[in-house]
Amino acid sequence: MSEDDVLVRRDGAFTTITMNRPRRRNALSRAFLLSLTDAFREVGATDARGVILAANGPVFSAGHDFADMAGASHADVRDLLQVCAELMRTIQSVPQVVVARVHGLATAAGCQLVASCDLAVAAAGAGFAAPGGKGGWFCHTPLVAISHNIGRKRAAEMALTGEIFDAATAADWGLINYAVPDDELDKATHDLLQRATQGSPRSKALGKQAMYTQFDRPEPDAYTYAIEVMAASALTPEAQEGMTAFLEKRPPTWPA
Amino acid sequence: MSEDDVLVRRDGAFTTITMNRPRRRNALSRAFLLSLTDAFREVGATDARGVILAANGPVFSAGHDFADMAGASHADVRDLLQVCAELMRTIQSVPQVVVARVHGLATAAGCQLVASCDLAVAAAGAGFAAPGGKGGWFCHTPLVAISHNIGRKRAAEMALTGEIFDAATAADWGLINYAVPDDELDKATHDLLQRATQGSPRSKALGKQAMYTQFDRPEPDAYTYAIEVMAASALTPEAQEGMTAFLEKRPPTWPA
Amino acid sequence: MSEDDVLVRRDGAFTTITMNRPRRRNALSRAFLLSLTDAFREVGATDARGVILAANGPVFSAGHDFADMAGASHADVRDLLQVCAELMRTIQSVPQVVVARVHGLATAAGCQLVASCDLAVAAAGAGFAAPGGKGGWFCHTPLVAISHNIGRKRAAEMALTGEIFDAATAADWGLINYAVPDDELDKATHDLLQRATQGSPRSKALGKQAMYTQFDRPEPDAYTYAIEVMAASALTPEAQEGMTAFLEKRPPTWPA
Repeated sequence: MSEDDVLVRRDGAFTTITMNRPRRRNALSRAFLLSLTDAFREVGATDARGVILAANGPVFSAGHDFADMAGASHADVRDLLQVCAELMRTIQSVPQVVVARVHGLATAAGCQLVASCDLAVAAAGAGFAAPGGKGGWFCHTPLVAISHNIGRKRAAEMALTGEIFDAATAADWGLINYAVPDDELDKATHDLLQRATQGSPRSKALGKQAMYTQFDRPEPDAYTYAIEVMAASALTPEAQEGMTAFLEKRPPTWPA
Repeated sequence: MSEDDVLVRRDGAFTTITMNRPRRRNALSRAFLLSLTDAFREVGATDARGVILAANGPVFSAGHDFADMAGASHADVRDLLQVCAELMRTIQSVPQVVVARVHGLATAAGCQLVASCDLAVAAAGAGFAAPGGKGGWFCHTPLVAISHNIGRKRAAEMALTGEIFDAATAADWGLINYAVPDDELDKATHDLLQRATQGSPRSKALGKQAMYTQFDRPEPDAYTYAIEVMAASALTPEAQEGMTAFLEKRPPTWPA
Repeated sequence: MSEDDVLVRRDGAFTTITMNRPRRRNALSRAFLLSLTDAFREVGATDARGVILAANGPVFSAGHDFADMAGASHADVRDLLQVCAELMRTIQSVPQVVVARVHGLATAAGCQLVASCDLAVAAAGAGFAAPGGKGGWFCHTPLVAISHNIGRKRAAEMALTGEIFDAATAADWGLINYAVPDDELDKATHDLLQRATQGSPRSKALGKQAMYTQFDRPEPDAYTYAIEVMAASALTPEAQEGMTAFLEKRPPTWPA
């Protein structure tokens, strides 16, 4: 694994993490997954406000690399999948808003990556697939992330056909937030991240964390939890500053 | 709290509960939440078939009022949020079908109100937001109701951006049932409520209650529950009347 | 119950199970439900790759037959509903991909049938309803299947109004995969099934089973489960063949 396989570039308030194994179609080998997870953890500890997950080369990510699986034992595969799921969890647990900037194909664990980012924007020419459905190894774990974003019949169609669905369909189904013309991808990604990183960073970090905790819970359980988080956060300096600034009709100044 | 803050008007089979604090943007103070909850409970005990939740003034509801939060302790805020969630639960537990008639902005707990009604119709000019996302106090509890209506990426976009989404988008995402031209709002709300209040009131009341109980449960658990409710209700006078009238090709007469 | 009530026809890789009680609007009597369940179990044990659930006559299925309910005890109804849910579970547990081919009305348990198939294609002229909402016996159990496919506000609208929603709306909401012109129904159904039955049948069978197990679970629980299934299946002959064929750039040959 070269150090150049994961590029990290800070630009103002945002950091872009770029998958840079173009010749391997950004295949998610064990080492590459660990490097990506490290990159998210490191950026997570900075004062960046938002993170863009991007990719170099013609393919966003082709998922696991079958070449990496040759001779792998059950324990090896299980470990690889745990490492992969840990990357997904890390994306959801860093304090920053993470938006996927998708061009080209996002397949299998590559599609799972997109589904696991907080937000996603794709070029019109991008495509999304859970290709195990037309092979010999079903996309069980990518389907977890996919089916938490879109309806059951659509998730079943993606998983069972294994075929490529275009960006417009992905946006219509809710797998991504926006499909945009290819030459507007950077601007649209940046604009969405700008909109999603307004306000207090501390409040946003707590909000993101609590959001994933409450997702998928029955409504009464979600309220039980969310009421405590919301009450506990009302007296934080950032909540008080937001309310005071509003009442005093002045712009707020957020605590770091 | 003036008694005129919540207007209750019966008109035929339907009762309209109108939030009438226009100068406070129908802000959901503790006293106002309690008055609204009382109004729903009282209408719930009448023979009204349906309830419209409407609002006076330019704003549907701006959610909690920051002015109410000045000097509030953690216990105060926690209590306020419990009172707020109790209103949401009450709307879902009254025997009548409740439809939100939304014009203007429905933000924070105001958006939660819309999401918590059984059905919702909005004027094209209406807007929906979880504005904590761009402030200092994240909309944790409104997001509970929002994320039980729409997909994860869209809920995340609403919560993280805090921005206003228009009625057409809300309808496309499933946060509301219909977005209609502003001058058709009353008719469309009335028409939907008319369609949703056909049939036996008793059967409908049980149906609504059971619907919320089964939502969010894994499918096998939901069947275990729903089979018992459906079997138990088959021999009720209203179920028997419905089936007999169908077989006798006559209009049914529902027991009160 | 005549043996001709359920027609089973194998045609190449696919088997069509046709509901053939056209004069009874394919009403789901206890005997008919058992016959359908048997048909799915028998086809499930064959080497068919896919199953089409179709219907003869003007109506896809009108659900339970009120004539069957005359004089039924609570125990009778409970048993009928258990038998009905068992058909739904059987459709989801057979190893083949099951697609509903819907023309005409699919109401109550008939709509539940469509919602319970893995995939569904409907003619533009088809309609979907949970008509208990406008009668005396609420569609509690059909709503279980419906609400696991579509958003809450839409499920509530179907259940509370009891009215008929057209195929285009059903596709927009995700209750079915595609609404197509009436004269393209057979071709579209066949095409979707063809796309959904590519790849290894064994892998697909496991994939379908695991898909329903993970649906509705919180994301962390779903990963815990899916990682084990995906790891365990990596060393199966079909997974190995798929990967080897890919790396050797040759078409795979799937083990039976």
